[in-house]
Amino acid sequence: MSEIHGLAVHAAGAHLLPYKYEPGELKADEVEVKISHCGVCHSDVHLIDNDWGISRYPFIPGHEIVGAVTAVGSSVANISVGQRVGIGWQADSCGVCEWCRKGEEHLCAKAQPTCVGRNGGYADAIRVNWRFAIPVPENLESENVAPLLCGGITVYAPIRNHGVRPASRVGIIGIGGLGHIGLQFAKAFGAEVTAFSTSKSKESEARALGAHHFVNTRETGSMKKLEGSFDFLLSTVNADQDWGGYINALRPKGSLCIVGVPPSPIALQAFPLVGGQKSLAGSPTGSPTDIAEMLDIAARHNVKAVTERFAMDKANEAVAKVKKNQVRYRAVLAN
Amino acid sequence: MSEIHGLAVHAAGAHLLPYKYEPGELKADEVEVKISHCGVCHSDVHLIDNDWGISRYPFIPGHEIVGAVTAVGSSVANISVGQRVGIGWQADSCGVCEWCRKGEEHLCAKAQPTCVGRNGGYADAIRVNWRFAIPVPENLESENVAPLLCGGITVYAPIRNHGVRPASRVGIIGIGGLGHIGLQFAKAFGAEVTAFSTSKSKESEARALGAHHFVNTRETGSMKKLEGSFDFLLSTVNADQDWGGYINALRPKGSLCIVGVPPSPIALQAFPLVGGQKSLAGSPTGSPTDIAEMLDIAARHNVKAVTERFAMDKANEAVAKVKKNQVRYRAVLAN
Repeated sequence: MSEIHGLAVHAAGAHLLPYKYEPGELKADEVEVKISHCGVCHSDVHLIDNDWGISRYPFIPGHEIVGAVTAVGSSVANISVGQRVGIGWQADSCGVCEWCRKGEEHLCAKAQPTCVGRNGGYADAIRVNWRFAIPVPENLESENVAPLLCGGITVYAPIRNHGVRPASRVGIIGIGGLGHIGLQFAKAFGAEVTAFSTSKSKESEARALGAHHFVNTRETGSMKKLEGSFDFLLSTVNADQDWGGYINALRPKGSLCIVGVPPSPIALQAFPLVGGQKSLAGSPTGSPTDIAEMLDIAARHNVKAVTERFAMDKANEAVAKVKKNQVRYRAVLAN
Repeated sequence: MSEIHGLAVHAAGAHLLPYKYEPGELKADEVEVKISHCGVCHSDVHLIDNDWGISRYPFIPGHEIVGAVTAVGSSVANISVGQRVGIGWQADSCGVCEWCRKGEEHLCAKAQPTCVGRNGGYADAIRVNWRFAIPVPENLESENVAPLLCGGITVYAPIRNHGVRPASRVGIIGIGGLGHIGLQFAKAFGAEVTAFSTSKSKESEARALGAHHFVNTRETGSMKKLEGSFDFLLSTVNADQDWGGYINALRPKGSLCIVGVPPSPIALQAFPLVGGQKSLAGSPTGSPTDIAEMLDIAARHNVKAVTERFAMDKANEAVAKVKKNQVRYRAVLAN
């Protein structure tokens, strides 16, 4: 097989440099994908900087990949050469544990992230296990769908798994890379949607994306007014928040789900949780079958990431801009 | 109507003194119950001491009541004079809100606790709205069933609502007034049950009540060994715990539910919640229909509170013993 060419980081925080690797023989359960687009997720920045202590250098970042299948292994039954697929946070898993067999591979203890101990999507091609190559519906644009593969499923899965429905009152906390997609999916589920943001400037955009209401969390007393209002709150921010205020903003039986990881522990008084039968939940990305479901819904409800496009060889520029939170809302590299 | 005689507390922390009140005309939706037994719940102690700042003196404590109906109001259709009923934490609610109409009166914002702003069960009789007088199956002993009305439903409801089933691995944290009933219900649901206690001395009793395993949480490394083991953990203790250790002890998608209220906020790192799709939940008592369901299951599975009996006029003694955590496991006053 021919070499794969991409851009790798060789040490924590280093710039991306041209890099190539030899993928070897195509395994029976693998597909090879010629990459057309790859999103630049905040998780890539964390991996580049080794913020989580799990990075293995050198590696090619990128785990929001869209491209066309160029080869399939001998045991791949459901994917054909030429088909467009998306690849997200995971590229493989053990395949035999309870979670893998239930189609919840994202919970497999041996799940392989696409660019930890492997090379990801800032490249011309990639190989992954067929289970993690998800067909992309025809009417979605590759540039807008790329960020759905990680950012999108991260907000779609909890909205789905917490039973959001048209009667639900949903709040999306943080209107950025994740939150702007969360607004769209919450709207697609038919819910009454409130956007929470520290930036008053995002109000009109949030409303255009599906929010019925906008709360400027910097405004004094804004949270107090909302006590007992929400069935489901989804926090997409990676900053410390007024967690107790959000718990109070829930109706009885409501849940606050976090997908952003704040720097400090989340400290909650027990009484409001107990009295209101409320919960604090976390959610990782999502399963391959949930990604497929999400893409189907995105196609029917016209959900798309708002993107800023960079040529693949401008990846360093894109990463720098993501790092500075200057992209509205998702950077995508295009080959 | 004749006067009701009981034992009331007149100021925070005061001894119980004989007290009587005139209940007035029986309302159309009320039942009057001649009390045979009343449990002494830790919540009574908190109300006596005004720990929660909601006590209204003078009042008669007691909200784990069993007795026989002596009168029914004109609109009561399902309860007859002579029937044995149980009464728990609530005596009335608004009756018209969403939660009341769904049979989830425990979540009604105007729910009336049995002995806050009203007089409870350390008495010869009580009046409550018929919806909160739950028929008690014949084969249950009044003394053992009294503590189920508050302590029992507090552990039954979360076991039920979190979907515990025979495949579930369940841990009950704290083997006291609540936990010893929790073990029995978890076993009745068919789960594999682990008791967590700081008292090695409770092991044999915990096993007799339904625990398959016993963890002495004071033993170094006991929690570390259990990482990824449980689907559901129920904390019945009102002391601060190694919450992060319990979250780590959950399997993916697991929940830690608290019904005991610890003094300090519960502080959790976000990563383990997010990565494992885990949650921290709270649960209050339970709805009247859940109480009825619980009593039915208690009757069929022989679930009973282990009790220490006191004559009603020894209520001060019982309260003092509960306060000192010297009762194994529930004190019950008998008329």
